[in-house]
Amino acid sequence: MTIARENLRWNGWGRLGESIELSGPREQALLAELGRRLGRSLSRAPAPIELDAVRPPPCKLTPAVLAQLRAACGEDFVRTSAFERLTHALGRSLPDLLRLRRGEIERFPEAVLYPRDEGAVAAVLRIAAETDLAVVPFGGGSSVVGGVEPRTGPGQAGALALDTTRLDELLRLDRESGTATFQVGIDGPALEAALASQGLTLGHFPQSFEHSTLGGWIATRSVGQQSDGYGGIDDLLVSVRMVTPEGVVRTIEVPRSATGPDWNHLVLGSEGVLGVIVEATLRVRPAPRASVIRGALFRNWADGLAAVRAMHGAGLSLTMARLSDAAETELSLLLRRDPMRRVDPAATALGLAARAGWGSGRCTLLYGAEGEPGRVRGALRSARAIAWRHGGLPLGSAPGRAWRRERFRTPYLREWLLDHGVAVDTMETALPWSRVADGHRVVTDALHAALGVHAGSGLAMGHLSHGYPDGACLYFTALWPLDEARPLEQWAAIKRDVSDAIVAAGGTISHHHGVGTDHAAWLARERGTLALAALRAAKAALDPRGLMNPGKLL
Amino acid sequence: MTIARENLRWNGWGRLGESIELSGPREQALLAELGRRLGRSLSRAPAPIELDAVRPPPCKLTPAVLAQLRAACGEDFVRTSAFERLTHALGRSLPDLLRLRRGEIERFPEAVLYPRDEGAVAAVLRIAAETDLAVVPFGGGSSVVGGVEPRTGPGQAGALALDTTRLDELLRLDRESGTATFQVGIDGPALEAALASQGLTLGHFPQSFEHSTLGGWIATRSVGQQSDGYGGIDDLLVSVRMVTPEGVVRTIEVPRSATGPDWNHLVLGSEGVLGVIVEATLRVRPAPRASVIRGALFRNWADGLAAVRAMHGAGLSLTMARLSDAAETELSLLLRRDPMRRVDPAATALGLAARAGWGSGRCTLLYGAEGEPGRVRGALRSARAIAWRHGGLPLGSAPGRAWRRERFRTPYLREWLLDHGVAVDTMETALPWSRVADGHRVVTDALHAALGVHAGSGLAMGHLSHGYPDGACLYFTALWPLDEARPLEQWAAIKRDVSDAIVAAGGTISHHHGVGTDHAAWLARERGTLALAALRAAKAALDPRGLMNPGKLL
Repeated sequence: MTIARENLRWNGWGRLGESIELSGPREQALLAELGRRLGRSLSRAPAPIELDAVRPPPCKLTPAVLAQLRAACGEDFVRTSAFERLTHALGRSLPDLLRLRRGEIERFPEAVLYPRDEGAVAAVLRIAAETDLAVVPFGGGSSVVGGVEPRTGPGQAGALALDTTRLDELLRLDRESGTATFQVGIDGPALEAALASQGLTLGHFPQSFEHSTLGGWIATRSVGQQSDGYGGIDDLLVSVRMVTPEGVVRTIEVPRSATGPDWNHLVLGSEGVLGVIVEATLRVRPAPRASVIRGALFRNWADGLAAVRAMHGAGLSLTMARLSDAAETELSLLLRRDPMRRVDPAATALGLAARAGWGSGRCTLLYGAEGEPGRVRGALRSARAIAWRHGGLPLGSAPGRAWRRERFRTPYLREWLLDHGVAVDTMETALPWSRVADGHRVVTDALHAALGVHAGSGLAMGHLSHGYPDGACLYFTALWPLDEARPLEQWAAIKRDVSDAIVAAGGTISHHHGVGTDHAAWLARERGTLALAALRAAKAALDPRGLMNPGKLL
Repeated sequence: MTIARENLRWNGWGRLGESIELSGPREQALLAELGRRLGRSLSRAPAPIELDAVRPPPCKLTPAVLAQLRAACGEDFVRTSAFERLTHALGRSLPDLLRLRRGEIERFPEAVLYPRDEGAVAAVLRIAAETDLAVVPFGGGSSVVGGVEPRTGPGQAGALALDTTRLDELLRLDRESGTATFQVGIDGPALEAALASQGLTLGHFPQSFEHSTLGGWIATRSVGQQSDGYGGIDDLLVSVRMVTPEGVVRTIEVPRSATGPDWNHLVLGSEGVLGVIVEATLRVRPAPRASVIRGALFRNWADGLAAVRAMHGAGLSLTMARLSDAAETELSLLLRRDPMRRVDPAATALGLAARAGWGSGRCTLLYGAEGEPGRVRGALRSARAIAWRHGGLPLGSAPGRAWRRERFRTPYLREWLLDHGVAVDTMETALPWSRVADGHRVVTDALHAALGVHAGSGLAMGHLSHGYPDGACLYFTALWPLDEARPLEQWAAIKRDVSDAIVAAGGTISHHHGVGTDHAAWLARERGTLALAALRAAKAALDPRGLMNPGKLL
């Protein structure tokens, strides 16, 4: 079991004791500046409720059912403690954190099960079918779209959280084919460590990397921070096994097939509603001998966009090209500013750049490549030339090093903001290149409008996080002063307005977060009702009693 | 309408009047050599039946139904002539050709419809639903797995062939995003011509390119001869519209999405059983400024395989790497031998190579790259170095030029062989690299055994046609003396034995030909019955009366 939840925050992100590091003076300066921008003075918000104060209702399972589950999973691996039920009650979205901090948890799983193998998973589904219980597959629990809440369907007395983290083994390594077969409850660090010991990597690094599992990546069609080069989890998946209430669905280990619709792509993104993914074979690669990220500063968003599009058009083998808009560029400069530091060469350089035309409106690009040193150098050289042609001032490798240091730590910022009464949420979409600039403008405008209406003020910013030959992912971040009286309603109203704008702009409601409960309302507009009806029909064939993760996706 | 069937062979491949070019003496020498290898003297086989002698049974449609169909498609575009019904009765597999040449056509469509737009397609499906008729989408009609035969389901009085070739327009070009939206009845040459006029290419060149349509490529998950570089049609598809009996299923034009299972991948490979694909948006690229194919000769299959695997492992941007085994290498040398030619420098060079160790067992590799001249040179230089390290003797660009000349003409060879009583069929699969060598041996052995048992003799050979980081496609060709009394039974017996061997070796039953009727028996072993049940359930939601292409795929 690679994830030890007792070492993690029960009501927030990440490891206990870890947080963003802000010295006292920096913290004060930042609070003052944020407060100025949000139009109110920021101070310590009401403290979140203590863990001990959360009391789940009694477990509704009968001793007989618990005994059956113990027979399937092992005596110690059917858990009904308050801690277990609480840590499997919600994911890590903003509304989840708001609920946890206030102790307003609507639903708890009746028990948390830790099956050890495929047989135990099948046994759990059988018991759940016989006793009319819902089953919610649970990996890292890092869903930001409500994907793991233990909802129940009609006629179901409760839900079981099926924790996959004991399914954490590397089962096979096929060096000749460059594939590795894992059980899917393994988390990011353990998976990469198992591969690193063989000189290999998967190259999949979502921001949740440290606290998410392979199964979650597959179930939500995850992308990582280097996916421009390695591909998303859909590109890395060779074959998969999924236990459904009606039996096992599996695909075979071949590089390609033309035998009808591709079932990997039915399992990818299935979000637990069809079954429990238990095993996956993945394409792996030699660990890169070189990995470099460089920065460039553009005069404005349009120049930066043109450069990133040209890089994708030129087919450079970049692993990332991440362009912040002006607002995000400015906020990240603000976050790194240290009032105690007398001499700051970077600040001096930026001042010079501002006078030379890279001032307000400027946008930071981070671009990187991994692999053989010669090829990395070649790709970065070509990318720098393209950036230069679009007015991209080279920033060297310092911004990349800073980003790499912070890459998995950004979510900790959310705790600090919430502690000071500031909400932060992110939304993302993908658009064809011809609509990226408009889409960014329209969604940012909608975000500003929504923050004005529902929060009185707020900050909205965005970046291009992933690019493709034909389009890109836009990722938006919003900060607003929390309405402590009605924080969930406030969030829902902002979310609704922005999601409407995304869909109206022709974007997908999610490029890589998934659907869960939070995006389900927009799915029919994106897919059409007929496609959803066909998916429901396929689900009914695999899960006729509707046990699997009710209320999500469909 | 880009396909003019009156200019095509009604009972064989390609254009009337075109055939492989063999001078009299070359033909005689080749017949003698083939006869020696097949253990019998080859002479002119019984002539195929004449077109006029084929008489379809009367069309069963009532005047009222025909009038409805004419209202939907237009007066001239509901056709019931013997020629139309015959040219839409079968595809271009070996058993199809055997049936056509003997005039043993079991099923004819009642009528052939040429709808002009999505509305007309929907109207046809509505009429078919009301009158219990099957609907068989028909593009180029080049299926080699029985994908277009007008079968009927329970309670259906007959089948309509829905010919898509009037849906042949380029609808939109989004240069900024690098995408083009076509109606899907456009054939390969027209599609590439439309793009070439804009300096673009799709880069999809299946062997059937001249006689197949975009819709067929999508419906069968096609790959082209340069797909190592451009990707298969699945990699090129951005979004799609499909008319089903219950309405339109469509995906949106975004580069990626994480909103549940990917519906592009349900439409890809759907083989007409879910609905009629009418429109598709595709990733296109600038037409390559350079396109080079080179040859290399390896001492044996194992050396060649190791080289191709290393090329894929090194991530060279090759568009093709096609390795013939020893038997195929030898037969292709035999086919190009000209007894009238006194001096043949290539033959002299091969003689020298044989004395130096590249003799019996030698294997030819063709490898190529397309794109910017500098990158093409770089990729080919790296590939040549890898080949050299594995004993690959450079053959220069002559073999590539010859291959390019013949790339769409090889199927014409089949007519000539059938004219002389020799059957030829092909089978293909894909396997991970760790099983490619074994798979090649096992399937070739099975092929030899099957030819011995069912035909007394035969030739069996293969090549690696496409490669991936994690595996490759193996493509097998078999020639055997036709049992003129029971040719279909003979074919079916050989096909069955080889298909069993492919599936037993862990291969997919098709890497790129599809399932149709001919591979359906092996599908459940590959996919498992549960996955097929779920697919049937999805079909029932889209096509509750079972109109769409009955008897195929599922």
